Amino acid sequence: MVKVGIVGGTGYTGVELLRLLATHDEAEVIVITSRMECGRRVDDLFPNLRGHYDLVFQVPDVAVLAACDVVFFATPHNVSMNLVPQLLAAGARVVDLSADYRIRDPDLWSRWYGEAHASPELLVEAVYGLPELNRKQIAPARLVACPGCYPTSVQLGFMPLLVQGLVDNKHLIASSASGVSGAGRKASIDNLLSETADSFKAYGVTGHRHLPEIEQGLSDIAAQQTQVTFVPHLLPIVRGIHSTLFAQLQDEGQDLQALYEHCYAQEPFVDVLPAGNFPQTRAVKGANRCQISVVVPQDRRTAVVMVSIDNLVKGASGQAVQNMNIMFGLNEEAGLRHIGLLP
Amino acid sequence: MVKVGIVGGTGYTGVELLRLLATHDEAEVIVITSRMECGRRVDDLFPNLRGHYDLVFQVPDVAVLAACDVVFFATPHNVSMNLVPQLLAAGARVVDLSADYRIRDPDLWSRWYGEAHASPELLVEAVYGLPELNRKQIAPARLVACPGCYPTSVQLGFMPLLVQGLVDNKHLIASSASGVSGAGRKASIDNLLSETADSFKAYGVTGHRHLPEIEQGLSDIAAQQTQVTFVPHLLPIVRGIHSTLFAQLQDEGQDLQALYEHCYAQEPFVDVLPAGNFPQTRAVKGANRCQISVVVPQDRRTAVVMVSIDNLVKGASGQAVQNMNIMFGLNEEAGLRHIGLLP
Amino acid sequence: MVKVGIVGGTGYTGVELLRLLATHDEAEVIVITSRMECGRRVDDLFPNLRGHYDLVFQVPDVAVLAACDVVFFATPHNVSMNLVPQLLAAGARVVDLSADYRIRDPDLWSRWYGEAHASPELLVEAVYGLPELNRKQIAPARLVACPGCYPTSVQLGFMPLLVQGLVDNKHLIASSASGVSGAGRKASIDNLLSETADSFKAYGVTGHRHLPEIEQGLSDIAAQQTQVTFVPHLLPIVRGIHSTLFAQLQDEGQDLQALYEHCYAQEPFVDVLPAGNFPQTRAVKGANRCQISVVVPQDRRTAVVMVSIDNLVKGASGQAVQNMNIMFGLNEEAGLRHIGLLP
Amino acid sequence: MVKVGIVGGTGYTGVELLRLLATHDEAEVIVITSRMECGRRVDDLFPNLRGHYDLVFQVPDVAVLAACDVVFFATPHNVSMNLVPQLLAAGARVVDLSADYRIRDPDLWSRWYGEAHASPELLVEAVYGLPELNRKQIAPARLVACPGCYPTSVQLGFMPLLVQGLVDNKHLIASSASGVSGAGRKASIDNLLSETADSFKAYGVTGHRHLPEIEQGLSDIAAQQTQVTFVPHLLPIVRGIHSTLFAQLQDEGQDLQALYEHCYAQEPFVDVLPAGNFPQTRAVKGANRCQISVVVPQDRRTAVVMVSIDNLVKGASGQAVQNMNIMFGLNEEAGLRHIGLLP
Repeated sequence: MVKVGIVGGTGYTGVELLRLLATHDEAEVIVITSRMECGRRVDDLFPNLRGHYDLVFQVPDVAVLAACDVVFFATPHNVSMNLVPQLLAAGARVVDLSADYRIRDPDLWSRWYGEAHASPELLVEAVYGLPELNRKQIAPARLVACPGCYPTSVQLGFMPLLVQGLVDNKHLIASSASGVSGAGRKASIDNLLSETADSFKAYGVTGHRHLPEIEQGLSDIAAQQTQVTFVPHLLPIVRGIHSTLFAQLQDEGQDLQALYEHCYAQEPFVDVLPAGNFPQTRAVKGANRCQISVVVPQDRRTAVVMVSIDNLVKGASGQAVQNMNIMFGLNEEAGLRHIGLLP
Repeated sequence: MVKVGIVGGTGYTGVELLRLLATHDEAEVIVITSRMECGRRVDDLFPNLRGHYDLVFQVPDVAVLAACDVVFFATPHNVSMNLVPQLLAAGARVVDLSADYRIRDPDLWSRWYGEAHASPELLVEAVYGLPELNRKQIAPARLVACPGCYPTSVQLGFMPLLVQGLVDNKHLIASSASGVSGAGRKASIDNLLSETADSFKAYGVTGHRHLPEIEQGLSDIAAQQTQVTFVPHLLPIVRGIHSTLFAQLQDEGQDLQALYEHCYAQEPFVDVLPAGNFPQTRAVKGANRCQISVVVPQDRRTAVVMVSIDNLVKGASGQAVQNMNIMFGLNEEAGLRHIGLLP
Repeated sequence: MVKVGIVGGTGYTGVELLRLLATHDEAEVIVITSRMECGRRVDDLFPNLRGHYDLVFQVPDVAVLAACDVVFFATPHNVSMNLVPQLLAAGARVVDLSADYRIRDPDLWSRWYGEAHASPELLVEAVYGLPELNRKQIAPARLVACPGCYPTSVQLGFMPLLVQGLVDNKHLIASSASGVSGAGRKASIDNLLSETADSFKAYGVTGHRHLPEIEQGLSDIAAQQTQVTFVPHLLPIVRGIHSTLFAQLQDEGQDLQALYEHCYAQEPFVDVLPAGNFPQTRAVKGANRCQISVVVPQDRRTAVVMVSIDNLVKGASGQAVQNMNIMFGLNEEAGLRHIGLLP
Repeated sequence: MVKVGIVGGTGYTGVELLRLLATHDEAEVIVITSRMECGRRVDDLFPNLRGHYDLVFQVPDVAVLAACDVVFFATPHNVSMNLVPQLLAAGARVVDLSADYRIRDPDLWSRWYGEAHASPELLVEAVYGLPELNRKQIAPARLVACPGCYPTSVQLGFMPLLVQGLVDNKHLIASSASGVSGAGRKASIDNLLSETADSFKAYGVTGHRHLPEIEQGLSDIAAQQTQVTFVPHLLPIVRGIHSTLFAQLQDEGQDLQALYEHCYAQEPFVDVLPAGNFPQTRAVKGANRCQISVVVPQDRRTAVVMVSIDNLVKGASGQAVQNMNIMFGLNEEAGLRHIGLLP
C-alpha cells in the first residue's frame, strides 16, 4: 500500500486526487495539508467525500510528509519549489501538479512566472510526467512534474504528426478551450458564474503561461525547434478541455487515421476515435482519458486534430495518479477505471 | 431631462441601471461613482456599453451628487444610510436599491444587518418602493427604498390573496430560487461558476436577510401580522427569480384566476398569465416585468402561486427606474419597454 | 456472476446502467436491446463506454432475455407491462425502471397513464423497490418496480416524520426541481438547450404522473391516507433532483436532526448532513446517494426538509442496481461506490 | 411605416424579428405565418411578447404577403426559393434569412443542399446582405440574401486583412463556436440540453454548409480565390458566436490595430475593441453588434482575429432589420439600439 501525502488539498486538483484515490486499492492518503482549513474535516469542505475519508486538514509539516512514499503537490506555482528539496532529501518521492518543475530552463521559467526559481538545481532531474512520452523515465523518477492541462491536450494531439515529421513545425496552431475549474478554487470576480456563464471568450492571447511549456514539449517530441500559436478560450462549463489543432502537411496522401491509431494502440488512456467521430468533453468527464480525432478537410493539406480531456483528470489529478502507478510499479490503470459521466 | 447620479456603479445593479437609462428619453446619467475604479471609463469595465456612454467612474462627492435630480444607490448595505442625509439636505431625491431603508424598525434592521443604523430618523420618511402597493406615496417621496428581489416576487405573488383575506396568513410558504447575479459582483469562492454551475441547493434556510422585509411587506398588505417560511435556493443561471408560493385557502370555490387578473389589470409591469400557462424566468429576462400564475392543484385548498421576474430588472434596477418615473411625473413605462430575451 | 439483460438501452437510464455495471464485479451485461439502434455498437452511441463494452444493440427477443438472471427495463411506460409476464414465466427476474408496476391500483394507473394496464394481475406481486422501506420484500421478489426519481426524493425526505407521526399528513408540500435528463433522451422541442438553459419554471402543477406514486408511498409509510401538494420544476442542468419539503409539526420541541440521523444510521446510501449543512445536487452527481437536511426555521412548527439525489442514479439506475444486489444476495454497495463528481 | 410580413415565425429568428420590430418606430409587422401553429397567438407561443403583439399565426398566402412592403423569410432552406418569385412579381421586396439565395452558383448550392434550386434565375439578382460590404447594392435591391451567422463573423473578421492583401489567402483558418440556438427550434435529440450542456465539441469538420458561403464571400472581398479551413464548434449556451481566425501575414510590422479601427470607423455595428481587450459573446447578447480584436502573438507573423456576435441578431434577425432599414431609406440604426445584456 503506497502511503500518500497531499499538499494543498483545498483546491480542485486536491479534491479530485481524493476522489480518485478513495477507490484505489493500492494507495492510501494518510495526510493532507492546508494552512487555511487547518483542523477542518475534508468531507466538511467537500461533502461528496462523506463516508470515504476521516481525514482532517493539517498544517504542512516536512517530517510528516516525509513519512509518505509519495507526496502530491496540488498547489499554485511557487510552493513546491520551496518544499521539494527537503522532501527528496528525506526520502519521499514527489509528483508535482504545479508548474514549478515543468520548464527546464530556469530563466525561461522566471520570465513567465515573474520570480526566481527556488530550486533550479532540480530542474534537470525532474521528469516531465507525460507517460505517453516519458514512461521509462517516470518509473524510476524521484520528482515528476505533471504537465499542465492545455499542454497535455496539445502535445497528445500533435505527437503523431511531429514524431513522423509530417508537418511544418514553425506554424502550428492550437485553438483550445477550457472549463472554468482550470482557473482553480479561489475568490475572484473573473470566474464568477455571473461573469462566465452563458458566454465565451479568448484570453491570454498575447501570451499564456502554458505556451513555453507547450513549445518545450513539442520541440522535444519533434526533436527540433517548434512554434505554436496558442489561443486559449474560456468555456462556460466546469470541467473539460477541447483543443482544435491545425498543422500544414508537407505532403499529401498520408493515412492520418491509421497513423494515429497505430501511435496510440498500446496506450490505455488515449483513445483515437473511429473516422467520422469527433471528441466531446462530456464523454471523458471524470475519466482519465484523452479522445482524439484527425481529419484533413477537403483534402487541402491542413490537418485538423481534435482532442478532449477532463482538465482535472487526464489534465491534472488523474495523470498524477497514473504517474504514481508507474513510479511504484503498480498497474497503470489502478484507480483510474472511471467511465465518463455521460450525460 | 432628469439628471441622474449613480453611487456604486461597478456592480450588477449599476451596469443594469446604465443599460436601462441609456435608452430613456427623459433621463440622463451625469455622474457615476466608484472608489475602486476611479478614473476608468464605464465602457472599459462593461464593454456592452461601448458607444452609449462616455462616463468615467469618479470618487463619490456629495456636492457633485447633490447637483443631480435623483441619486441611485447601487451599493451594498451600509453605504446609503451614511450619505443619504446629506444628499436630502442638499435637495436631491434618492432611490436606494440597497437594504438600508427597507425595514422601518431600526432594531429589527440592526438584528439582521449586525450594526446600528446610521440614520434611523429617515426610516419613517422612506417610502417602500413597490409601485403596485405604494404608487401614491412614491410620487412625492424624497427617499424611496427599492424592495429586494426576493421580496418583490413574494409580495406581488401573495398580494391578491392577502388583500382579500383568503388565506391562513400564519403559515405561508415561499420556495424561491435566484440566479447567481443576485449575489453581486464581488470576489468570492461560493459564487464561482465551478461552485454553482450544474448544481442546485437551498441556502439561508434558517434565516435570510430578506425574511424580515418580506414579513413586514406581507403584514402591511394583509393589515395583520403575517408569517412566511421562506426558503431561497441558488439557480445555476445569471438572471432570474422564480418564487413558488403556497397558502392554505380558508374557503373553497374562489376563482383565483379572475381575482389575480382583476387585481393586476391596470398594472403595466405585472402580467397574469392565462390559465394553464406557468411563468419561466427566460420570458422576462432583461424586462421590467413580473409574470404570475395561480392554481389550486386537485382542488384541495392549497393555492400555488408562481412568480417570475428578472432579479436585476423588476427585482432591482428596473423597479428603481419605475420609481424614478413615478417620482418625476414621467410615463411610468419610460425606458422600460424592453422585451424579454427569449430564447 | 449475475447475467444481466437490459431492455431499452438507448436512453439515459440505459447508458447509466451500463456505466454502473461496467465496474460491478459480480454482474455482467450480456444482452441489450433497442429496435431503433439494432446492430449498432453501444460504444458508438455512447462514446464514454469505449473500451468497456463490445455489446451491440439487438432486437428484443424473449428467449434471449429469459436466459438472463435479471432483466432491467429502461424503457418508457407501456413496454414492460407487455413483456414482463413472459419473462417471469420463463424464470427471469425483473427490475423495472419504468412506471408500469409502481401503482398498485390498476384504475388509478389507467387514469394517469391513459390506457388499460396490460398485466394488472402482477401489480399485487410487484414489490416497490425503495430499499429503505421494503428491503425485506425486495430480496425474494421476482418483480421489482423501481421508484420514480421525484418519488424517491420525496419519500426519503418525509419518511422519518411520517413514521413517527409528527406532522399534519393532509397538508404536505413538496417543491421539487429536476435536471433535464429526467425527461429522457428523445427528440423534443421542450427540452432543447435553447428552451431550457438559463431559465427555470414549474410544470405539471395541476397534476404530474409522479403524484399518485408519491401519495401511495407516503400513505404506506404513514399507515394512513396522506396528501401532498407536489410542484415539480425544471432545472437548467443535466442531472440532479432537489426536493424542498414542508410539513406542519403537531408539536414543538422534537430534535429532528437526531430523529433523521437515527432513522438512516444503517442506510448505506442515505446521508443525513450535519446540522447547518444543506444538500447540493453536485455533491451526489454520479453517486448512488441521497443527502438530506432538516430544519425548523424560526422554531415556528414548519419543518423544512431538503433532499438531493442524482435522478439517474439513486433516482433510477443506481437504485435499480441496489435492488439487484439485494435480490441476488450481493453486497448492497457492490458497483455503487462512486463518489459524487464535485466540482 | 413599412408594412412587414414574416414567413415562418415559429423559429428563433422569427421570434427575434418580432422582438426587434416591436420597438421599431417605422416598421410594423402585419402578418406572420406558420402552417403548424396556424390560429395560435404569437404571444401564446412566445410569452416574452405578451403586451406587444396581437398577431395570430396564419397559413402563408401569397396575396396577403404581397400586400406587405417587405417579407422576411425566417424559414429553413428550401422554402423561400419556391415563394420568392411570386412575391417579387407581386411587387413585394424580400429579405431572406435562409440559405436559398446566398450562393451565386446554382450547382454549388445543389451540391451542399442536396437538391436542385427552384429559382436559379434569381441568384444573380439577389444581393448578399452584408451591409459592411454591399451597402450600396442593398439599398435598391428587391431581394436580399441575409448572410449566415458563422459567415458574418468570419467575413467581418478577415475583411480588413483581405482588402489590404496582407495575408496568405490560401491558408486561412477559422475556429468558430456557436450557441445552440443556431441549430434552430425543432425537435431533435442532438440539441437537447442533456446532450449539449456542460460539454463542447467540434462538428461538421469535414464540410459545413457555411463553408461555400464563407469562401465565396472571402473571395469577393479579396478579389481572388480564397480558401479557409473552417471548424465550427457547439457551445453550451443559447446565443452567441465567437470566431477565432488565423492568417499568415505576408510581411511584418503592419499596425493591424490601426488598420481595423480605420476600416470600421464609420460602421455603426462593428466595434473594434481597444488593444488588449478581447470580445466575449455576452457583451453583444441581444445587440446588433460585432466586436473584434486583432493581435499578432509573439510578433510571429500569425495574425489572430477574434470576433463575437449574437448569432440571432447581427448573425440573423438584426442584420435582416439592418438590411430593411437600408432598403427603405430609414436610419440604419432604427430599431437596433439594444445594448448587450451583460451580465
